[in-house]
Amino acid sequence: MICDNLSSHNGVLYFNGRNTLSLAQEFGTPLYVMDEDRIRANCRTYRVAMKESFGENSLPLYAGKACSFTALIRIIKEEGLGLDVVSCGEIATAVKAGFPMENAYFHSNNKTDGDIAYAMDRGVGYFVADNKEEVDAVDRIAGGRGIKQKILLRLTPGIDPHTYAAVATGKVDSKFGSAIETGQAAQITEFALSRAHVELAGFHCHVGSQVFDSDVFLRASDIMLEFIAEMRDRFGYTAPMLDLGGGYGVRYVDSDPVLDIPANIAQVSKSVKEKCQSLSLPLPAIRMEPGRSIVADAGLTLYTAGTVKKITGYKNYVSVDGGMTDNPRFALYGSAYTVLNAGKLNEKTDLECSVVGRCCESGDILQEKVKLPASTCRGDVIAVCTTGAYNYSMASNYNRIPRPAVVMLSDGGKTASVAVRRETPEDVLSLDV
Amino acid sequence: MICDNLSSHNGVLYFNGRNTLSLAQEFGTPLYVMDEDRIRANCRTYRVAMKESFGENSLPLYAGKACSFTALIRIIKEEGLGLDVVSCGEIATAVKAGFPMENAYFHSNNKTDGDIAYAMDRGVGYFVADNKEEVDAVDRIAGGRGIKQKILLRLTPGIDPHTYAAVATGKVDSKFGSAIETGQAAQITEFALSRAHVELAGFHCHVGSQVFDSDVFLRASDIMLEFIAEMRDRFGYTAPMLDLGGGYGVRYVDSDPVLDIPANIAQVSKSVKEKCQSLSLPLPAIRMEPGRSIVADAGLTLYTAGTVKKITGYKNYVSVDGGMTDNPRFALYGSAYTVLNAGKLNEKTDLECSVVGRCCESGDILQEKVKLPASTCRGDVIAVCTTGAYNYSMASNYNRIPRPAVVMLSDGGKTASVAVRRETPEDVLSLDV
Repeated sequence: MICDNLSSHNGVLYFNGRNTLSLAQEFGTPLYVMDEDRIRANCRTYRVAMKESFGENSLPLYAGKACSFTALIRIIKEEGLGLDVVSCGEIATAVKAGFPMENAYFHSNNKTDGDIAYAMDRGVGYFVADNKEEVDAVDRIAGGRGIKQKILLRLTPGIDPHTYAAVATGKVDSKFGSAIETGQAAQITEFALSRAHVELAGFHCHVGSQVFDSDVFLRASDIMLEFIAEMRDRFGYTAPMLDLGGGYGVRYVDSDPVLDIPANIAQVSKSVKEKCQSLSLPLPAIRMEPGRSIVADAGLTLYTAGTVKKITGYKNYVSVDGGMTDNPRFALYGSAYTVLNAGKLNEKTDLECSVVGRCCESGDILQEKVKLPASTCRGDVIAVCTTGAYNYSMASNYNRIPRPAVVMLSDGGKTASVAVRRETPEDVLSLDV
Repeated sequence: MICDNLSSHNGVLYFNGRNTLSLAQEFGTPLYVMDEDRIRANCRTYRVAMKESFGENSLPLYAGKACSFTALIRIIKEEGLGLDVVSCGEIATAVKAGFPMENAYFHSNNKTDGDIAYAMDRGVGYFVADNKEEVDAVDRIAGGRGIKQKILLRLTPGIDPHTYAAVATGKVDSKFGSAIETGQAAQITEFALSRAHVELAGFHCHVGSQVFDSDVFLRASDIMLEFIAEMRDRFGYTAPMLDLGGGYGVRYVDSDPVLDIPANIAQVSKSVKEKCQSLSLPLPAIRMEPGRSIVADAGLTLYTAGTVKKITGYKNYVSVDGGMTDNPRFALYGSAYTVLNAGKLNEKTDLECSVVGRCCESGDILQEKVKLPASTCRGDVIAVCTTGAYNYSMASNYNRIPRPAVVMLSDGGKTASVAVRRETPEDVLSLDV
């Protein structure tokens, strides 16, 4: 099994102790199922590891863009993590969940004045300003309210994406942040320090997600600490906080490596402390922003198979009752997933097929070259594993298809409760005038 | 201008006679704007051309998956087109619009029993059965209601997609339909004719969308008519209806060809009539399914520019307040679009830039290598043209970003009315328990 919250009993797939066929029966399909215990365990892994490695002053921030709904953010709150939000919709979700907004960090490469006002109205603790215009806008809007707003500056450490294929957002040529290499980062720091209504709390960088190689964090933190020392030397400003962004990789298929997150964080910590010492810097309050690795393996999607099409001499297709509308990641990136026939785990998987969705679109594919039992037929429950991140959050109503429900499994599967209700066909029209 | 409903007055972009800067001011951005007059004109082009070429018995069906909301389907109804629906959500929209459901055709490669029952409850005229299992399911569910349900069979004519790059759904190796070449099409025909509760009304094929070369339709109709003649000879069944699917291509950029749709339809008609004569077949009732070419050039999206980032020696970025959440087509397919600075049409376009969205994702790009004026700055209105198809319909709440409103311009722009209201941050949580 790709993750240890999955198990097989008499050929039936169980998830966090629950029979997935019964879940499909009880709640209908397509269905997102989430494992609350796994979410909490993942939160604790980060929190404990960061505390041990970086001290009491450190905090993991859950990156809500991976998956955000009220019940989930409530769990994040209870586990004592901070929260990375990227839109008014995510802020509204956090407010509804009763999240302490002083621990929320507002990201995005392009905040409108309306966004900034919305976030200030709700007491968002930190604005992660992407560029000089945003510092200016935050300063102006905070000034209008007579407050001083804490900000971090998003910098691009300029790590070459050609060396690190998974790294796509920390390079100089990025829509995100201000580059250290070009001198823009120093300029924006000087600018932020000169503003009356912003309090520069530190710096942020993000070198990419689905990172398996901790060397990426080591290099990024090295560059960022050198920049902090440079700013101290130039402007007498010692940044109290350093946010290293997200996030460690998760396993989608058996060939993906197994990561020891505490060991990786300890390694980053060792490097950061040595670097601080060599630069005579105090250890900043460290932030990390895991999203995917908090929720991905806590998610599973259940579908019902419809048409099974065997085109002799060509290819086989198993159609399911969802698709790119609830999981567009194969359509967008060709992402790999583990796909199982949830009721036939004991059978030989001798049918190679494409598992496709129900959209009127050729690209509506969930996964290609899947091995399923040859007996797979209409009515079988098909499970796609590790769908907790970037599935529900990316869902659309393409083809006017209503979005699935999210069911949360808690207490070792003793309870299963609807966290997001299933959309109805009529819901899809609710904004039509 | 890429389309003649766009014009420039003193350097300001007008759409169907309306000042786009005023529209952005009045309704906010991002904003989908649609030109009702152009939608009606496009409907009439198809209806008149088909009537003239194929006679009174022919009908264009609007493919709702291109764009579906109540006010739009009401226009389709008023223009007397049929409707291709692919989900319960699209059926619910048609019902709300008062569409005569006997002229609705229910597509999809994978209809669940629930979908079939939902569609029958609402009197959908035709089910386009993708495969034998679907014929069986429709027959079974119709039998339970004591009715006889009209169906078309979706066949794959086996046109080689390597010859026709735009053609991706008519090949034998497809998730859609039953292949003529493999003998499955004949089998399913025999099966459908033997069922008590289905009435086989004819055949359907779809060779792909965004078709510029009418040779594709000529070859597809040739193959389909030969199949009709073969079925007559084998089973004594002469199909009364032939649905040739969609749809003619639209122009996104200046280098796309200009298509004369009536001339193309006349050419197909000539070929179909000759083929019928040579096979001694009566002319079937012809259906075509334009979606994109009815609405694409009737749509325009307006954004407000935020961050303008010039990374010397690297690249330039203009960020807007929307992105892949309202138009995922560049992220999915690398689709080309014409992008304009709506208030600076008279300025030299000497800034080459990527126009990017506000999502926390590197792939959130609307278009690359766009030429905009160097003076482009925060607050400017940016227009993306030809967004009427597969933009609103593919929108998501990724990053919990609320979806834009749709405003309809009517009577040469004399009236502008909200057809789909803007989603609020709170709407985004409305399904959270």
